[in-house]
Amino acid sequence: MKVLVINCGSSSLKYQLIDSASEEVLAKGLCERIGIDGRLVYQKEGLDKEITEAPMPTHKEAIQMVLDALTNPVSGAISNLSEIEAVGHRIVHGGEKFSGSALVDDAMIEAVAECTELAPLHNPANLIGINVCKELMPGVPMVGCFDTAFHQTMPDYAYLYGIPYEYYEKYKIRKYGFHGTSHSFVSRETAKFLDLDINNSKIIVCHLGNGASISAVLNGKCVDTSMGLTPLAGLVMGTRSGDIDPAVIEYLGHKLGASVEEVLEILNKKSGVLGLSKYLSSDFRDLGEAALNGNMYASIALNVFDYNVVKKIGSYVAAMNGVDAIAFTAGIGENDRFVRAKILDSFGYLGITVDKERNKVRGRNVKISTDDSKVDVVVIPTNEELAICRETVAIVSNTAR
Amino acid sequence: MKVLVINCGSSSLKYQLIDSASEEVLAKGLCERIGIDGRLVYQKEGLDKEITEAPMPTHKEAIQMVLDALTNPVSGAISNLSEIEAVGHRIVHGGEKFSGSALVDDAMIEAVAECTELAPLHNPANLIGINVCKELMPGVPMVGCFDTAFHQTMPDYAYLYGIPYEYYEKYKIRKYGFHGTSHSFVSRETAKFLDLDINNSKIIVCHLGNGASISAVLNGKCVDTSMGLTPLAGLVMGTRSGDIDPAVIEYLGHKLGASVEEVLEILNKKSGVLGLSKYLSSDFRDLGEAALNGNMYASIALNVFDYNVVKKIGSYVAAMNGVDAIAFTAGIGENDRFVRAKILDSFGYLGITVDKERNKVRGRNVKISTDDSKVDVVVIPTNEELAICRETVAIVSNTAR
Repeated sequence: MKVLVINCGSSSLKYQLIDSASEEVLAKGLCERIGIDGRLVYQKEGLDKEITEAPMPTHKEAIQMVLDALTNPVSGAISNLSEIEAVGHRIVHGGEKFSGSALVDDAMIEAVAECTELAPLHNPANLIGINVCKELMPGVPMVGCFDTAFHQTMPDYAYLYGIPYEYYEKYKIRKYGFHGTSHSFVSRETAKFLDLDINNSKIIVCHLGNGASISAVLNGKCVDTSMGLTPLAGLVMGTRSGDIDPAVIEYLGHKLGASVEEVLEILNKKSGVLGLSKYLSSDFRDLGEAALNGNMYASIALNVFDYNVVKKIGSYVAAMNGVDAIAFTAGIGENDRFVRAKILDSFGYLGITVDKERNKVRGRNVKISTDDSKVDVVVIPTNEELAICRETVAIVSNTAR
Repeated sequence: MKVLVINCGSSSLKYQLIDSASEEVLAKGLCERIGIDGRLVYQKEGLDKEITEAPMPTHKEAIQMVLDALTNPVSGAISNLSEIEAVGHRIVHGGEKFSGSALVDDAMIEAVAECTELAPLHNPANLIGINVCKELMPGVPMVGCFDTAFHQTMPDYAYLYGIPYEYYEKYKIRKYGFHGTSHSFVSRETAKFLDLDINNSKIIVCHLGNGASISAVLNGKCVDTSMGLTPLAGLVMGTRSGDIDPAVIEYLGHKLGASVEEVLEILNKKSGVLGLSKYLSSDFRDLGEAALNGNMYASIALNVFDYNVVKKIGSYVAAMNGVDAIAFTAGIGENDRFVRAKILDSFGYLGITVDKERNKVRGRNVKISTDDSKVDVVVIPTNEELAICRETVAIVSNTAR
């Protein structure tokens, strides 16, 4: 089955066309600057990238251009749109309404719209993508895959904040978690790769990218994760603060004469390792190099990041009363051996030992712990598009039956 | 040496007169409703409490009444004020200026005043106490013991938030931690009680009272603690939220039409187990009873509290790469065997086993883990007044030499 995977942002769109049988990517790319000027990047498997500048006033023109490129007689990956048998959409927030992926229908669209308040920047863009695809590919079954769905198995004591219960009831303020598609995919891949019985396993997934989150996966189900009501919470990230004393918001607001919205903008965009490094960079390669060259703030930023990952892992080991495997994924997790080594240094008490040679891996499935390590540690590249493709096929096939 | 220990709040004052040689409390009590109407509670060791209602417009009248009661010919613990050889004051915030207790002099008073911004409700009251004692007991050496001092040994990567470094430099926004006198006292007592070499030890102190905090003490030095810039951060507490997604403040503010100050008031006063239990109680005895009688919200509140303690302990085990001993102290930690048992259930992976009989202890030094437990777990009652007395004697004796 050929599945088109769509990830709509507010002014951009990423896509992949995947053959679900071979799990091969037939073509992929993105649309940028939608509503501004417009730029399509398209790459058929085995060929060079093609870049087309063209006006894209809305997501509709953007998706039309993607479909045109996919069916282009010269570089197209398919000869006819009818070859696309299903579309999988990434959707950011499913609130408490979705604990798994769901077939797109009117009721589902309405439910997603009702979650907009929880993700005001993302859900509307996701809905636009769905509606445009409905219009341009009528009759093609579509599936929505939620960033939050995998985390819906958290028990109440893990997802509730220490705030009045009425705010959970009235306003649905709780921990939702994000990166769910990645945590789900990587935890499954980890079990498969290590030949663990997923139904009898304790896995910690460290999704460390510019956005970073960690989840505790017990018997295949998420029991805790570090992001919260929003993706601001949890770890110190590229530009996000992660958890801080809530009183800092008031204190900093007074100091800066800034509104709570302005303070949150700082916590989202100017904080994390970027802010700690005195705005040097949010990129770990830049920071690593600067730290090697003696930049104290770059070192501090990296140390703070590493230390918070260590503490979060430690807390999830306790949450599950032990751990069988720890997986590193996403940009930093897959590629930065220094960060991995530094973090793992803190887990001697669990009997974790790292194989230095194996830890040199970048971006492929490798066990980086030694064979006699008491806990397995692996690098497992995430692949959210493939995960969405798999989910889409599963739902569409189930529905067809 | 007879030491008067004073703990001044904004409208109250607690005191103890301690004989430092025997560490016996000669008399103790409190003044309440200072500036409102006034009420003195006084109790000489071995005698009943005496309660006197009398006007106390300011802390000066309150302290004068304490001194009068201490020297009262009938029930006084001393015959003459000159028997008080030193006064120890609890001070809440020492910022980065004080990493230990300090002799009170003009420079010290000025430095405490400079920290007022970080503890606007507490430091001014503490300073009033100091100034009144100076006036009423001229020439008697006084020492200030800071709630924050013990935590000043935290490394930068532990005390820095993931926010722009300039806010640490300009506004001193960082984690300070509180309950330091208790964490210091209990970690030392734990090492002594278990015959551990404090200089080669990893101890986690769980100070669980209405305010609650946990600290990681490596080789006798605090390396991390759960409270932050303010005592709002960290664990879910009696009425305080502890850590939450910072975005909750904006979201909740919008929902309630409340200012950031009003939201923080809710997070400080109406949250924690009180808020989670639908305002049933912030008292763990009430909640435990209600939970036993089937109150779902009481159960949820207790579960959230326990779970957050578990995660914090787990994170500090990782922060120190292991742990030798875990100590429970303060109201809940010393007295609530159910909470202790529930928390410790999560640490089978560390080889911790609890002796059910020993765990029935209330309020005295007892090892509650089994003899073959891989990590020792103890109940160690805290005694901040005694700790302040010891610090005061140490500083005064040192200075006199």
